[in-house]
Amino acid sequence: MEKNIDIEYANIDLDRTERTGMQEVIYCAGKTAEQIAGIVGAMVERGLYNILLTRISEEKVDFLKKSIGGHDVFYDADGKIGVVDRKLSDAPIGNITIVSAGTSDLGVVREAAVTAEVLGNRVNVINDVGVAGIHRLLAKEDMLKEARVLIVVAGMEGALASVVGGLVGCPVIAVPTSVGYGASFGGISALLSMLNSCAAGVSVVNIDNGFGAAVSASRINQMETAQD
Amino acid sequence: MEKNIDIEYANIDLDRTERTGMQEVIYCAGKTAEQIAGIVGAMVERGLYNILLTRISEEKVDFLKKSIGGHDVFYDADGKIGVVDRKLSDAPIGNITIVSAGTSDLGVVREAAVTAEVLGNRVNVINDVGVAGIHRLLAKEDMLKEARVLIVVAGMEGALASVVGGLVGCPVIAVPTSVGYGASFGGISALLSMLNSCAAGVSVVNIDNGFGAAVSASRINQMETAQD
Amino acid sequence: MEKNIDIEYANIDLDRTERTGMQEVIYCAGKTAEQIAGIVGAMVERGLYNILLTRISEEKVDFLKKSIGGHDVFYDADGKIGVVDRKLSDAPIGNITIVSAGTSDLGVVREAAVTAEVLGNRVNVINDVGVAGIHRLLAKEDMLKEARVLIVVAGMEGALASVVGGLVGCPVIAVPTSVGYGASFGGISALLSMLNSCAAGVSVVNIDNGFGAAVSASRINQMETAQD
Amino acid sequence: MEKNIDIEYANIDLDRTERTGMQEVIYCAGKTAEQIAGIVGAMVERGLYNILLTRISEEKVDFLKKSIGGHDVFYDADGKIGVVDRKLSDAPIGNITIVSAGTSDLGVVREAAVTAEVLGNRVNVINDVGVAGIHRLLAKEDMLKEARVLIVVAGMEGALASVVGGLVGCPVIAVPTSVGYGASFGGISALLSMLNSCAAGVSVVNIDNGFGAAVSASRINQMETAQD
Amino acid sequence: MEKNIDIEYANIDLDRTERTGMQEVIYCAGKTAEQIAGIVGAMVERGLYNILLTRISEEKVDFLKKSIGGHDVFYDADGKIGVVDRKLSDAPIGNITIVSAGTSDLGVVREAAVTAEVLGNRVNVINDVGVAGIHRLLAKEDMLKEARVLIVVAGMEGALASVVGGLVGCPVIAVPTSVGYGASFGGISALLSMLNSCAAGVSVVNIDNGFGAAVSASRINQMETAQD
Amino acid sequence: MEKNIDIEYANIDLDRTERTGMQEVIYCAGKTAEQIAGIVGAMVERGLYNILLTRISEEKVDFLKKSIGGHDVFYDADGKIGVVDRKLSDAPIGNITIVSAGTSDLGVVREAAVTAEVLGNRVNVINDVGVAGIHRLLAKEDMLKEARVLIVVAGMEGALASVVGGLVGCPVIAVPTSVGYGASFGGISALLSMLNSCAAGVSVVNIDNGFGAAVSASRINQMETAQD
Amino acid sequence: MEKNIDIEYANIDLDRTERTGMQEVIYCAGKTAEQIAGIVGAMVERGLYNILLTRISEEKVDFLKKSIGGHDVFYDADGKIGVVDRKLSDAPIGNITIVSAGTSDLGVVREAAVTAEVLGNRVNVINDVGVAGIHRLLAKEDMLKEARVLIVVAGMEGALASVVGGLVGCPVIAVPTSVGYGASFGGISALLSMLNSCAAGVSVVNIDNGFGAAVSASRINQMETAQD
Amino acid sequence: MEKNIDIEYANIDLDRTERTGMQEVIYCAGKTAEQIAGIVGAMVERGLYNILLTRISEEKVDFLKKSIGGHDVFYDADGKIGVVDRKLSDAPIGNITIVSAGTSDLGVVREAAVTAEVLGNRVNVINDVGVAGIHRLLAKEDMLKEARVLIVVAGMEGALASVVGGLVGCPVIAVPTSVGYGASFGGISALLSMLNSCAAGVSVVNIDNGFGAAVSASRINQMETAQD
Repeated sequence: MEKNIDIEYANIDLDRTERTGMQEVIYCAGKTAEQIAGIVGAMVERGLYNILLTRISEEKVDFLKKSIGGHDVFYDADGKIGVVDRKLSDAPIGNITIVSAGTSDLGVVREAAVTAEVLGNRVNVINDVGVAGIHRLLAKEDMLKEARVLIVVAGMEGALASVVGGLVGCPVIAVPTSVGYGASFGGISALLSMLNSCAAGVSVVNIDNGFGAAVSASRINQMETAQD
Repeated sequence: MEKNIDIEYANIDLDRTERTGMQEVIYCAGKTAEQIAGIVGAMVERGLYNILLTRISEEKVDFLKKSIGGHDVFYDADGKIGVVDRKLSDAPIGNITIVSAGTSDLGVVREAAVTAEVLGNRVNVINDVGVAGIHRLLAKEDMLKEARVLIVVAGMEGALASVVGGLVGCPVIAVPTSVGYGASFGGISALLSMLNSCAAGVSVVNIDNGFGAAVSASRINQMETAQD
Repeated sequence: MEKNIDIEYANIDLDRTERTGMQEVIYCAGKTAEQIAGIVGAMVERGLYNILLTRISEEKVDFLKKSIGGHDVFYDADGKIGVVDRKLSDAPIGNITIVSAGTSDLGVVREAAVTAEVLGNRVNVINDVGVAGIHRLLAKEDMLKEARVLIVVAGMEGALASVVGGLVGCPVIAVPTSVGYGASFGGISALLSMLNSCAAGVSVVNIDNGFGAAVSASRINQMETAQD
Repeated sequence: MEKNIDIEYANIDLDRTERTGMQEVIYCAGKTAEQIAGIVGAMVERGLYNILLTRISEEKVDFLKKSIGGHDVFYDADGKIGVVDRKLSDAPIGNITIVSAGTSDLGVVREAAVTAEVLGNRVNVINDVGVAGIHRLLAKEDMLKEARVLIVVAGMEGALASVVGGLVGCPVIAVPTSVGYGASFGGISALLSMLNSCAAGVSVVNIDNGFGAAVSASRINQMETAQD
Repeated sequence: MEKNIDIEYANIDLDRTERTGMQEVIYCAGKTAEQIAGIVGAMVERGLYNILLTRISEEKVDFLKKSIGGHDVFYDADGKIGVVDRKLSDAPIGNITIVSAGTSDLGVVREAAVTAEVLGNRVNVINDVGVAGIHRLLAKEDMLKEARVLIVVAGMEGALASVVGGLVGCPVIAVPTSVGYGASFGGISALLSMLNSCAAGVSVVNIDNGFGAAVSASRINQMETAQD
Repeated sequence: MEKNIDIEYANIDLDRTERTGMQEVIYCAGKTAEQIAGIVGAMVERGLYNILLTRISEEKVDFLKKSIGGHDVFYDADGKIGVVDRKLSDAPIGNITIVSAGTSDLGVVREAAVTAEVLGNRVNVINDVGVAGIHRLLAKEDMLKEARVLIVVAGMEGALASVVGGLVGCPVIAVPTSVGYGASFGGISALLSMLNSCAAGVSVVNIDNGFGAAVSASRINQMETAQD
Repeated sequence: MEKNIDIEYANIDLDRTERTGMQEVIYCAGKTAEQIAGIVGAMVERGLYNILLTRISEEKVDFLKKSIGGHDVFYDADGKIGVVDRKLSDAPIGNITIVSAGTSDLGVVREAAVTAEVLGNRVNVINDVGVAGIHRLLAKEDMLKEARVLIVVAGMEGALASVVGGLVGCPVIAVPTSVGYGASFGGISALLSMLNSCAAGVSVVNIDNGFGAAVSASRINQMETAQD
Repeated sequence: MEKNIDIEYANIDLDRTERTGMQEVIYCAGKTAEQIAGIVGAMVERGLYNILLTRISEEKVDFLKKSIGGHDVFYDADGKIGVVDRKLSDAPIGNITIVSAGTSDLGVVREAAVTAEVLGNRVNVINDVGVAGIHRLLAKEDMLKEARVLIVVAGMEGALASVVGGLVGCPVIAVPTSVGYGASFGGISALLSMLNSCAAGVSVVNIDNGFGAAVSASRINQMETAQD
């Protein structure tokens, strides 16, 4: 059984599903449209689907569609994320709830949501409940308590992660965003906040990395009861 | 009228009270015990009292006491702050409330409290209400609402400033502290959080600068109604 | 009574006026013109006015005007700030004086001035009195002394905040700006200067945050005499 | 039912177990021995046990033992972590496996292990399998595959997290450590590596934060199968 | 014999070949097309060839071609590198193997390969064998072992350098790339990883500096056996 | 006698010549063409000339020319520096020698040269003598020795300042430039090098600040012999 | 004539006086007492005197005195600077004036003063005239105007350099100090301020580098009138 | 054949010699004396010798000697490096020349020299030839030309690496050191200089990493002529 596809500029890891339960995802920043099309082409040829394309522009998606005609490419412009031959599960599992601090964080929320859905999870979203109006968050306490995993998306000072972390007992994945200006330093402020959270049970991914948060959350959401 | 005292290693600004309503304060880090004693000596000689000594060690206070015998030196070891010939007002003004995130922030709270009291303000303190247990803070909402100015003291992710800022309409002075480890970077994490607060009405002072926060708060607390 | 408006991508905090004395402001960076129009639409529908729009481009303002026809949108291009249905007070309160170091700081000055005026304050401005020609500042000493609160706006080395801070007894809010090049690092130099000011009574907001400075200043300017 | 204990310098969150499934933990850095003893005293008085004390020195533990005589204090000197009245479960749950890059990371490994055990988890440890000798890691592949959650502890360049992340399908919590010198900058190098991991499914906690990693891992390890 | 060409805006080091075995290379960023053409013109006039042009855009190459008509300019658009009058050796020496972590690193790989070939080396390339799928790398172990020098090119967390460094006994030159986003900080993350590599025998060049890596590798590859 | 011109957006310091021997210079970044024209207009109206305009684009110069028709505006496109009604001295003073490391530093060299000439100094330039070919520099040792002040302009690692500093006894002003990529961090690398120079007698100005270096050099060059 | 002394661990540059007008100075941090004594011994043996020892502890001076018995070692404990066989000029030249912001900057002032005196300059000192009380500085305006060169020493926000720079026409050398705490970051705040000074004619040396400032100032102070 | 020794706290890589030509080295910072003794004990038991111990204090060496009595431990106090059962080659290979900028860099020089000698190389050292007195370096040009590999050790501004790099054609390994103060930031200044060297053929290791430089240099020095 083929473990990888070795083409000139890429070496596609077919064994990844076997090892990690999830096939290789294509990070499209820094790749040309031709390279992306080449990689996707080799994958669809082998019958693969639900191929995730992160950080991809609309132009590259258009090129890809022409290049691999006959295959569908779902695209979410806010999240700059695509999915080739997307097939969502009819019975998504559990409950991943994504909570965002503000409307400007929407792109990261979308990247996380599209990823988590493709991975077979049931996804809920609570937008714009930043801590400057804490009652908005507290009003959603029931939804928070029902989640199996929480993804908290926030820029600026990123305080939402700590507040949410103090309210729940489930695992929390925090995603700092580059929303803000001046001393937010492109997301460093939120990143440091989340790493220093006074609430335990919060772990953190890279700035604007909705995709990575969704993968971690999916693995957690799909856990089964431990056996003796 | 003498505007300053020019001694070899120091130039004491006697005019500062006239200009700013507050006499010169002695920052003791990097000064020898002899220099501090020399400066204080020149000031008490002119009948000055309530002389603040910030960032002073117990050893230097002991040296000072001997050097200016006959004058009292109040000392708070947590806040590393001293006051020569402290005379507190019988009728302190208004209400400055200091809110801290954790017990480890106590030194900064004390520096702020001692300063604010010497400046004639009524001071209240609410300790250890960090956002990991938000109900502790919400339980104090009445006290927060009664304050004329709030000083919020927090290390680690400094989220408390944003949450408090979203609950009140009075001015909020945030003090980041160096409490934490690793990526708290000696208070940078809390500092950036507070500068990027999503709640408006929050301004910030230097890391661990309880003294500066108290001076700002005192000026605000002692404001009078605007005249037409 | 409705406490918030929960639309798909936003959760507008109507209760904010009750809690903090000031209604929610729309931070427009990172929001699409459609989202801004949706939020403003929901607010004007409920009779709200003086709606502040910070960090908004002229294009988004034009879209908004068309979208909510029948409502006026004031726009200041220097400060990139808009106000929907602006109604200024006939009897503005007190005296907020904004002092800037140079002509290049004008955008931040405007953001602060527009905000402070909408909040009902009387606003004065002193431009281009940076410390390289200190006599220009000293010539304005009377205006400085008449202020109830000062907002000091400066880029490059940000020294103006310390010099002003040493001249007055009122609260000073310092705003570092991103004016400069090389080792000004987008405003970090001025930010650090202001945080380390040797003058007490100075507190600081985020780089280029004229809006935040104005909110803090407004709360201070509108203080009333403390009651026993 | 009492939700918190409000003593002068601390406000102990008794409700935390209800909200998050885990009682308050005492971060001992920056607290005096007297304060720690006061907090612990109030907790044992209410019958609480398995009280975690992080970042505590042997001296403070000795003081505590005298102060609360009659209660046992377990202490791990490598991990600088204590537990008052430790009672470990007879039937620990699942499998948290801690993997470290080098012997110098042992303190962080211990902090994580002690925490995870107190929280009721079965814990395995694989030490000193840094990537410079990848065969040592590959030789443990079975143990890695059996884990329900992995905690990867590494300093210097922190590459171990990415390599492990590429081998498994379970959630991975990465802990950067301050092991190294020069351009490791006290753990920044490992922290950045882990945040930028090319392997998905890795989330990160603060530098040297074995405690936080264990709490996240425990929540994950104790997940049950999702219900429809 | 002429040691340098001193024209108004440049001082071309003709002696460099004598001293270092390699003629001067033109760093084209920050130079105008006219300046580049002037420098190249002076060099070809003296019969020089294999003139390397780093960081050069296609537009500047076009201008150059017109300006020095009669000379060939080889251009690699991925690597943004040009060579005037390229003459490759018929018998390239030894074996420099370039290993990259991902397809997005291709530009840096190309800059290194073009440089190394012009310098007379035999060059092999192994692309896209990042550590998230370690089997892809291990499958190439023979090729790694055959190399006389390895150039490892990686962005994001740069872990590939350490893993490769642990597998081989030949010198390894690591090139961090600016591939990544958020906390990769334009290549700082990979740079720090490589500097802190737990594998000995790895040295590092500047971020995205494929050229510099190739020069170091070429000098090493062309070493001869030490004489007594 | 008028000490300053106070127009709405600017406060021109006419007294500066009296105090510092040099009239106010207009920093044009962040100013609109209209503002620049307004300031220059007020100055030429008062008979001022040799008005320096730093960091000005060609477009703004064109606008200015139209606006103040009848006055000449000299413009150097490399240095992005303009001079209104430039009148150079017939007998320039002394000898300021500007030494640059590479052709890419030319813009900064030009900014310094234009400034120094307007201030009445004789200026020499030695370009492209970076330390990678030290013989080029040593060949100019006579010119270096003849200088009364040296301005050393270098990017990348900025080593030229130290080497020059070790060869001469006159004051050296070092200007780091933003030439370079990757870990040059926009000039930080060269800036730090120059601040840490092992050669004494070197002082440093801001990154790319040819103007400031020229002002310092001019003051030094125009020193007269000390009187008893 | 001997150009250098090559001993095992050091290579003393005897030619430096010829080239730069100033003999080699011994930077003592990181050198053992034995190494220092060895270097000084070789120098006094050749009849050299006025040998400067920077960053030297009292213990090392004591060892040195014993080791080179028969030679005098002057020591200034504040400035941590020593001079072997100090012989000050009877007719010091010109006027270098050192201005400091606060008493805590005294060590750096002393390092500069001792150096400048040894180099044959007349030195004046004005201490503790930080900008928080600007009248103290303005009261010294005459002394400032009489200086041929100014050295401005300041920590915290370092604003003094800009204010002084705007008052005088002579060259200004600014020395940032590590005085301060929190966001002063060991002198970075003052360093950035001084590099970004809005006053022209200010150049900067390393943090706490009183020695380097004095050397630059000495060269300037000893300039003679330019010849045609 | 045993590939590794798995003891509780360590997993010794016996296969490393096979893979990389060099046995595992013990990094002693962060390890207890007991752990070091345990690891060394297991190695000597298997007949291994020339065991390198980096970053080890004299106290730990003393403990080790007692613990493994019967084995010799060579110790260099400057370089804080030890070697168990050191056996140097009678016929060391080739020529590694270590060049340092100043006497304060001696510790790093020693770490490199001890390592390179144990690995079988002939080692030469040129100390204290920093660029402030370039003639000292040029006087050694013959020694530089004779080297097969150069290790350049420098702190402060690290310019020596670029100057040396421009003089020779052999590979250069640069080691930044933490020598310096203020803006040298513990070696960052030298590190950035070396990474941005304008001379090609220079690669860099971690700050103060004499050991790593020696390993790279040894591999290069022991290269043999390439075969067709």
